[in-house]
Amino acid sequence: MNATEQKQRAALAAVNEIQDGMVVGLGTGSTAAFFIRALIEKAHANGWQITGVATSKRSAELARTLGMVVKDIDEVNAIDVTVDGADEFDSYLNGIKGGGAALLYEKVVALRSKKNIWIVDESKQSNRLGSFPLPVEVIEFGAQQVALTLQHMNLHPRFRMKNEREHLLTDSGHNIIDVDISHITDLTTLADQLKSITGVVEHGLFIGICDKVIIGTTPVQVLSKN
Amino acid sequence: MNATEQKQRAALAAVNEIQDGMVVGLGTGSTAAFFIRALIEKAHANGWQITGVATSKRSAELARTLGMVVKDIDEVNAIDVTVDGADEFDSYLNGIKGGGAALLYEKVVALRSKKNIWIVDESKQSNRLGSFPLPVEVIEFGAQQVALTLQHMNLHPRFRMKNEREHLLTDSGHNIIDVDISHITDLTTLADQLKSITGVVEHGLFIGICDKVIIGTTPVQVLSKN
Repeated sequence: MNATEQKQRAALAAVNEIQDGMVVGLGTGSTAAFFIRALIEKAHANGWQITGVATSKRSAELARTLGMVVKDIDEVNAIDVTVDGADEFDSYLNGIKGGGAALLYEKVVALRSKKNIWIVDESKQSNRLGSFPLPVEVIEFGAQQVALTLQHMNLHPRFRMKNEREHLLTDSGHNIIDVDISHITDLTTLADQLKSITGVVEHGLFIGICDKVIIGTTPVQVLSKN
Repeated sequence: MNATEQKQRAALAAVNEIQDGMVVGLGTGSTAAFFIRALIEKAHANGWQITGVATSKRSAELARTLGMVVKDIDEVNAIDVTVDGADEFDSYLNGIKGGGAALLYEKVVALRSKKNIWIVDESKQSNRLGSFPLPVEVIEFGAQQVALTLQHMNLHPRFRMKNEREHLLTDSGHNIIDVDISHITDLTTLADQLKSITGVVEHGLFIGICDKVIIGTTPVQVLSKN
């Protein structure tokens, strides 16, 4: 079964976690898009009232286009469950996110959610995080100086580009610097170090945030924290 | 001698720290503006080549209007000295900055400067920091959630407003939440806690950054770290 089919199966399985009346965090990326479509289809078929809280402009647009009520995170009291993809995850349900450059809003939404579910294909599973580059979101002002700091930390920083000359801009107007953490063993310490740098807004290490991973294999595999 | 006269005297004293050919960090606020004007006047009179690195759009504009070459922080190799105001400072040369909402760029520039000088009137001196509210710069997305976190930390958060209805936006498009830290004794721990919050970009506690404070009294008082 190819990756796309696995993403779809994982997305469908995640829809079973949703109930009428819930406030649902909507992830960003191809897998999350499958979930958004499947959820809205089921909600329409059953007459459910679901409120979405999006983690990117494009996910908000997709959900609204399909008829879902999407609210800003500051317009809801709580988020019942957030369903999102992940670029890489390990057996502790820690992971790397941000391949779609939405890591900042994804983390803000995830941290305000009662439950976080990641939907993935099996290629995302890793014995040790770091085969995927770790995105670090930085302010534009002095971004080269932050890159120098990351270079001194031996993390091989590379700006994510919009085109050959321009740095990519996130929904918040920040830059993304991808770093190589394949040689780092203590990721909790690294996460703290990165966030503490002046100019760094957030990074894509999600440690202790995910409650459940659904892998869209046949049969579907579920890894739960509890 | 009133505060304005003291600011002017401190600014003039700081100009004596500048030499021909230097790259100079330009602070933001009324006192820094006095310095920018005085520095450019002296540079013109002596035929000096000074390059400025500004900490805000308005300081860049002021300096350029008066004829100074202003570069982006990522266009210079190093900053020789930065001269800026401070809202409050103590005998350890720690301080609170950000009354002018420029704390983020001010901190980025300060951390890349070989030397940092604060120019102040005597009212800014404090036995214990916290009589001035501490500005915390936060991303707009989920800003109310960050305010809730700060409320739970017992810091009495208040959004800085542009007008009655709109939050103020910084040069980076972020919001400012002012918090009350008058009851906090361990400011280093608080600084780390604040920076670690997802959604917080930076805060106005400047600890271990300033090298020299010039107070524009008669005679001028200078406090040096070394």
